[in-house]
Amino acid sequence: MDNEELFVSVALNAWRSNIERANKIFGGLTPEELLQEVAPGKNRLIYLWGHLTAVHDAMLPLLGLGKRLHPEFEAAFISNPDKTQSVPSAADIGNAWKDVNNKLFEGFATFATADWLQKHDAISAEDFLKEPHRNRFAILLGRTNHMSHHLGQLALTGGD
Amino acid sequence: MDNEELFVSVALNAWRSNIERANKIFGGLTPEELLQEVAPGKNRLIYLWGHLTAVHDAMLPLLGLGKRLHPEFEAAFISNPDKTQSVPSAADIGNAWKDVNNKLFEGFATFATADWLQKHDAISAEDFLKEPHRNRFAILLGRTNHMSHHLGQLALTGGD
Repeated sequence: MDNEELFVSVALNAWRSNIERANKIFGGLTPEELLQEVAPGKNRLIYLWGHLTAVHDAMLPLLGLGKRLHPEFEAAFISNPDKTQSVPSAADIGNAWKDVNNKLFEGFATFATADWLQKHDAISAEDFLKEPHRNRFAILLGRTNHMSHHLGQLALTGGD
Repeated sequence: MDNEELFVSVALNAWRSNIERANKIFGGLTPEELLQEVAPGKNRLIYLWGHLTAVHDAMLPLLGLGKRLHPEFEAAFISNPDKTQSVPSAADIGNAWKDVNNKLFEGFATFATADWLQKHDAISAEDFLKEPHRNRFAILLGRTNHMSHHLGQLALTGGD
C-alpha cells in the first residue's frame, strides 16, 4: 500500500466504523424506542436515522456516484425540522439506510486514490482551481464527522 | 500541493474547524452555564471541556510531540466519570485547552506528510508492520471525530 492509499484507507476505516456503530444502535431499537427524543424537546431518534440517511443519499450525486435513491427524504429529514412532517416508517428508513450506504461503499470501491482528490459536485471548476481542498475526500471526512456529531447525541439515550 | 499534502491538508482543516467550533461554544459560556448538563443526568459542559482537553493532551506523547502538559486532567476527566472528582476551575480548563491545542498545532506544523504515516506511540513496531493504518493520521481523524461526538452533545444545550 503506498502513502496515498494509506491516507484513504485510514479515512475509509473511520467512515466504516461509524456506519457500524450506527447500524448497531439503530438496529437494536424498536419502532417505539425510535420515537423517543435524544434530549427533552430535541430530535427523535427516528428523525436522526432519516436525517443521516438523507445526508448520505445526497453524497451520491456530490461524489459523482449517481442520483439520490430517496430524494423524498430531503423534505422529511433535512429541509424541515422534526415533528413538522410525516415521516416514513422505521422499516422504510432502515431499508433506505442500508441501500444508500451499500451504494456508497460500492462507489468508494471504484475510486482510485486520485479520484478522491477530484472536485465534488457542489463547487465550480473555477473555484476548485483556487480551493483544491474542496474535494471528495473533504466530503468523506465531513460526513464522517457529521455521523459522529449525531452518534454523540444518540449515546445520551443509552446507558452512559 | 501534491496529492499527499492535499490529503493531510483536508484532514487538518477538519481538525481546525472543530477546534474553532469548540472555542466558540466554550468561550461564550459563563462559569455558571458550564455547570449545566448536556441532558438530564448526563455530563456537565465543564466536564466535556476538561475531557476534550485531557484527550487532546494525551495526543502529545501519542504523536511523539512531547509529554502531556496536564497529566492531572486524566483522573479528573478521563478515568473517572463526571461529578465524582473535584475539577479545576473554568479559567484553568480554558488555559489548559488553549495551551494543549497550541502545542498540537505547533507539532503538526513540523510534520512532513510522511510523518503522519508513522506509527503512533500506543502500538508496537511489530504490530505496526501488520497494521500500517494504525498511524498518526488515524489518531488525527479519530480525535477529530471524538470532538464531533461531544460537539453534537453540546449542540443540544443551544437553540437547536
